[in-house]
Amino acid sequence: MYTLGIDFGTLSARAALFDIRNGSEIASSVYEYPHGVMDEELFGRKLPSGFALQHPGDYADALKYCVSRVISDSGLDAKEIVGVGIDFTACTLIPLKDGIPLCFYEEFKDEPHAYAKLWKHHAAAPYAERFTELAKKRGDGFLDHYSGITSSEWMFPKVMEILDKAPKVYEAADSLMEAGDYMVFLLTGEMKRSICQAGFKASWNIKTGYPSKDFFRELDPRLENVVEEKLKGEISLLDKPAGRVTEKGAALTGLAVGTSVAVSCIDAHSALLASGICDAGKMMLIIGTSGCHIMMNEEERYIPGISGTVKDGFVPGYYICEAGQSCVGDHFDWFVKNCVPMSYAEEARAKGINLHKLLREKAQKLRPGESGLIALDWFNGNRSILNDSELSGMILGYSLRTKPEEIYRALIEATAFGTKVILDAFESGGQMISELYAAGGIASKDPMLMQIYSDVTGKKIYVSDYPQACALGSAIIGSVAAGVFESFSEACRSMAQPCSRVYSPIPENAEPYSRLYEEYKALHDYFGRGGNDVMKRLRELR
Amino acid sequence: MYTLGIDFGTLSARAALFDIRNGSEIASSVYEYPHGVMDEELFGRKLPSGFALQHPGDYADALKYCVSRVISDSGLDAKEIVGVGIDFTACTLIPLKDGIPLCFYEEFKDEPHAYAKLWKHHAAAPYAERFTELAKKRGDGFLDHYSGITSSEWMFPKVMEILDKAPKVYEAADSLMEAGDYMVFLLTGEMKRSICQAGFKASWNIKTGYPSKDFFRELDPRLENVVEEKLKGEISLLDKPAGRVTEKGAALTGLAVGTSVAVSCIDAHSALLASGICDAGKMMLIIGTSGCHIMMNEEERYIPGISGTVKDGFVPGYYICEAGQSCVGDHFDWFVKNCVPMSYAEEARAKGINLHKLLREKAQKLRPGESGLIALDWFNGNRSILNDSELSGMILGYSLRTKPEEIYRALIEATAFGTKVILDAFESGGQMISELYAAGGIASKDPMLMQIYSDVTGKKIYVSDYPQACALGSAIIGSVAAGVFESFSEACRSMAQPCSRVYSPIPENAEPYSRLYEEYKALHDYFGRGGNDVMKRLRELR
Repeated sequence: MYTLGIDFGTLSARAALFDIRNGSEIASSVYEYPHGVMDEELFGRKLPSGFALQHPGDYADALKYCVSRVISDSGLDAKEIVGVGIDFTACTLIPLKDGIPLCFYEEFKDEPHAYAKLWKHHAAAPYAERFTELAKKRGDGFLDHYSGITSSEWMFPKVMEILDKAPKVYEAADSLMEAGDYMVFLLTGEMKRSICQAGFKASWNIKTGYPSKDFFRELDPRLENVVEEKLKGEISLLDKPAGRVTEKGAALTGLAVGTSVAVSCIDAHSALLASGICDAGKMMLIIGTSGCHIMMNEEERYIPGISGTVKDGFVPGYYICEAGQSCVGDHFDWFVKNCVPMSYAEEARAKGINLHKLLREKAQKLRPGESGLIALDWFNGNRSILNDSELSGMILGYSLRTKPEEIYRALIEATAFGTKVILDAFESGGQMISELYAAGGIASKDPMLMQIYSDVTGKKIYVSDYPQACALGSAIIGSVAAGVFESFSEACRSMAQPCSRVYSPIPENAEPYSRLYEEYKALHDYFGRGGNDVMKRLRELR
Repeated sequence: MYTLGIDFGTLSARAALFDIRNGSEIASSVYEYPHGVMDEELFGRKLPSGFALQHPGDYADALKYCVSRVISDSGLDAKEIVGVGIDFTACTLIPLKDGIPLCFYEEFKDEPHAYAKLWKHHAAAPYAERFTELAKKRGDGFLDHYSGITSSEWMFPKVMEILDKAPKVYEAADSLMEAGDYMVFLLTGEMKRSICQAGFKASWNIKTGYPSKDFFRELDPRLENVVEEKLKGEISLLDKPAGRVTEKGAALTGLAVGTSVAVSCIDAHSALLASGICDAGKMMLIIGTSGCHIMMNEEERYIPGISGTVKDGFVPGYYICEAGQSCVGDHFDWFVKNCVPMSYAEEARAKGINLHKLLREKAQKLRPGESGLIALDWFNGNRSILNDSELSGMILGYSLRTKPEEIYRALIEATAFGTKVILDAFESGGQMISELYAAGGIASKDPMLMQIYSDVTGKKIYVSDYPQACALGSAIIGSVAAGVFESFSEACRSMAQPCSRVYSPIPENAEPYSRLYEEYKALHDYFGRGGNDVMKRLRELR
C-alpha cells in the first residue's frame, strides 16, 4: 500500500508516493507555478506595495500535473494508493463563488483582490493593526493564543482588506478559503477547514471558536456574520478524512475514485512527522527562505512573542506551538545578489561552483568571532519573539579589512542567534526542548550553517536523511486519516525517516559564541525593545 | 618669476611650477612610489600587523624625477624659479646616519625598523598608550594641546617602537627625521625641523618645547636625551627659508644652486593657502582617503577631541588646529572592492565608466532618508572627536530591498555626519567657522558628496577650481620664504586660486538630514562613549 503527499510551497508544488511499510519514496514530481508570486504587477498592471498574489489556476494545474505524473512514473495502479495528504502555505486565501475562484469570472479577472493572496501578502498590515487594537481594547481573550498580536499574513486582515478595497469581491464571494482547504475541495468536493490553518491563521480555537459576532460587528458592521457567510465549512482534525476522491477529482488527477483524502495542513508543520515527531518536547526547525520553530506540548503555555499555540492543531491531544524568523535564507540570497564582488563571481565560475558554495568554503575557515562582526537578522523584520515588522537589519564591526565571506558568516550567525532567542523564550516559558530537529532546504544543504546552529544553541540537532520532509509528512497524515494506522505514532514508527545526520556542539566554540550571543542579545534588546527606536524612525523617514 | 611646490602624498609625489603673479600652473609632474606602502611584506618577509613602511629611496627618486621633469617641461631657466616649498605626509619617520637613511646601510637593509615608518604605521599603538598614560599620570601639560591623547601615528610612539624592537637601529641613528624635513635636507644640506610637523606630531610647542628630560627618563631611561641625541635640528617657522639649494641638491633636481627652500609643511595644511586661507575662522576640509579639518584661530582654545592646536604652526601669529576622520574615501574604495555585485560591474563596463561613477549615478537619484539606512563611518576607527582607534563601522536599516547604491550613499552620508560632529565640536568650543572650504581628491571629483556635505552641515562649501591644492600651497610657502611676498596674505592675494564652485545647502534636504543626524549622534554616543562597548569587545574576541 502507498500514500501520497502533496506539498504546496511558495514557488512550486511537489507530490511524492511512499510505501507505507517503510516510508521509502517510490516516485516524486515537481511543478513550478507559471505565474510565480505576482508582487509587482498583475498582467501588466502595477500592484501596490506589499502585494503578493498567486494565480489559483496554478494550484489546480500543479495538482493535476504532479499527481498524474507521480502515479504514471511509479507504475502503480491508482487503487494501491490508499490515502492522500496535502500541505500548503498559509494563510493563502482564495475568494470563491460556487466552488470556483472569483478571478476566473470574467467580471473579476482584472481585480487583484479576486486572486489568491499569498501568505506573504503584507498589504493588509493596517487591517491587522486595527484587528489587534480592537481585540486588545475589548479584552477578547483569543489574542492570548498569539502573544497578543494578529499578523498581517493571517486570514482576517486579508478578509478586511478585500471588504475595504474591493467590496464587490467580498459580496460576490460565497466562500473565502485557505488554498490548502481548496485543494482538498478540488479532490473531494467537501468544504472542510483544517484546524491547523484555522487555529494558527484564523484566530479560531477549540474552546471558543472564532472571535465573536460582537467583535466582528464592532470591527465593521458588514463583518458581523462573516463566519456564517464566508467561512462555511466544518473545522476538522487531521486524523480523520476530509472526504474521498470524487469522479471529478479522479478525472483531474488519475487518483482512484473513493481514495481517502486528509484535511490539509500548514506546510512547515507536516515536516515534523517525517522525522517521527508526534509527541511533546521535540522542536523542529524548518530552515528555508524563512524560519519556523514548531513543537508540541501537553499543556497550554503562553510563551510571549511566539506566533501561536493551537490545541489539537496538529496531532490531536497536543498543543502545537509555532514561532518564526521572518527571513533566513532570504538574507543569504540578498547578500549574494547584492553584495558579492565580481572577483568572487569569477573565482566561483572558475571553480564551477555557485557563489553560496564559494562563500561557504571561505567562511568555513573562519573561527567564531574572528571577523569581529555581529549582525541583527531583521532584514525582513522580526517575527518571534519581538513580533515587529518595522525592525530592520544591522551589521556592526566593519573594518577596511572586512571580507565578503565574513559578512556572509555574520549573517548566518545572526540567524542562529535569532533562533537561540526563540529557544530561550520557549524554555524560560517552561516549555523545555528535549530534542532539536531540523528540516528544510538549508538544513539539508548547508552543513556549515547547521554546525553553527548547533554551536550557538549548544544542542545536538538531528537532520532527516530524506529531503522532502513536507511531502512525506503529508503522506503520513494521509495514511492516518485513511485509517491505515491507528495513530500518528504508529504511522511514524513505520514511515518516518531516520535522522542519521547529527550536528553536535564543538566544545571550543561554546565560549566565543556565548560571548557573541551576549552581544547579540544586548543589541536585540536595545534596538528591538525601545532602547533606541531608530529603525522605526528611519522607516518613517523613508 | 616662478615658485615650485612639491607635494609628497601616501602613494605618489607631484611637483608643479606656478607663476607668482597669478598662481597659474606652468607645468606639473607626478611620480608613483615604486615600493608603494609596504604593509604586508618587506622584500618577501612578512611584516607584523599594523606595519606601514615606505622606501626612502622612493622619496629621493620622486624628488629627482618630478622636479627635473617639471623644469624641463616648463621650458624655464631654473634661475627663474625663486622659491621651493615642500609638503609631506606626517609623521613619516626616517632613521638616518650621516644624512643617509639607515636602510641604505648593508647591515640594516633587511631590518623593517630601518625603513620609513609611514604616517599610518599603527604598530606603535602600545607605545602611544604608554606615552599618553605616563603624561597623564605626571600631569605634564603638553597633552592639553592634543585633547589628552598621543596617537600611534605620531613621532614618539614610533621612536619608542624602534628603541624597543630594534635597539640597534635606535643606537645607529644619529637623527630620526620627518620625511618632509629630510627632503629639505636633500636640497639644502640643512637639518631644520618644521614647526608644523613638530607641533602636530612631536608634542612640541612654542612655549615649552618638547616634553621634558624628566618625562622621557621616566618613559625609558635610554630616552632621557632623545631630543639632543636624535632630534637635532632647529624648529623653524614657515615664513623663513630653511636654506638654499646646494650643488648636490642642484645636481639631483636641476634646480639652480642658491634657490631658496622653505621649511616643510604637513601635506593637508598646505592646501589652505591654495584657497587663500591665511587667517582665522575659515575651515578647510581635506577630503581624500581620510579626512582633515584645519582652521586657524587668533586665540588658543582647547576643543575636546581634536587632534592638535599649534601656535605659529602654520601662518605665524595664528594658532592652527587640526581634527580628522580616519577614513573617508577608504570607505568607498573598500565598498567598491568588496561589496558591489557582478551585475553592477557589467553595467559599468557596458557604460564605459568605473564603479564609483556608476554608484554615484544611481545614488544621486535617492532622496535623503529614502534608503532607510544609517551608518557609522568608523571602518578605520574614529580620530575626531572620539579619538578611539578601536571603534568599528556599522550599517543599520537593511532590508531585503536594500541596493548597493543605497549602502554607498549611506557611507557617504556617514562621513558627512562625522564631519558635522567635528564642526559642532569646534563651534561649541567657541571656535566659530565663518566659511567652509574643501580640497582633496574627492572634493574636486565628487559633486554629489560635496552637496551632501553642504546639506548635512547646513553651510556653503567653497571648492577651489585648481585641483592640486597642496602643491600650490607649498609653492606659496616657498614664495613667502623666498621673500617674494611680505606675508602669506599678500602671497595669497596674488597666487591663491578662486573657489568658483560653491555648494549651498538645498533647503528641502535640511529637515531629513537633521533627523538623520540626530540618529547618527545617538548611535555615535551609544557606541562611542561607553553606552555599549560591543565594538571593543568584538575586537578583543578577534
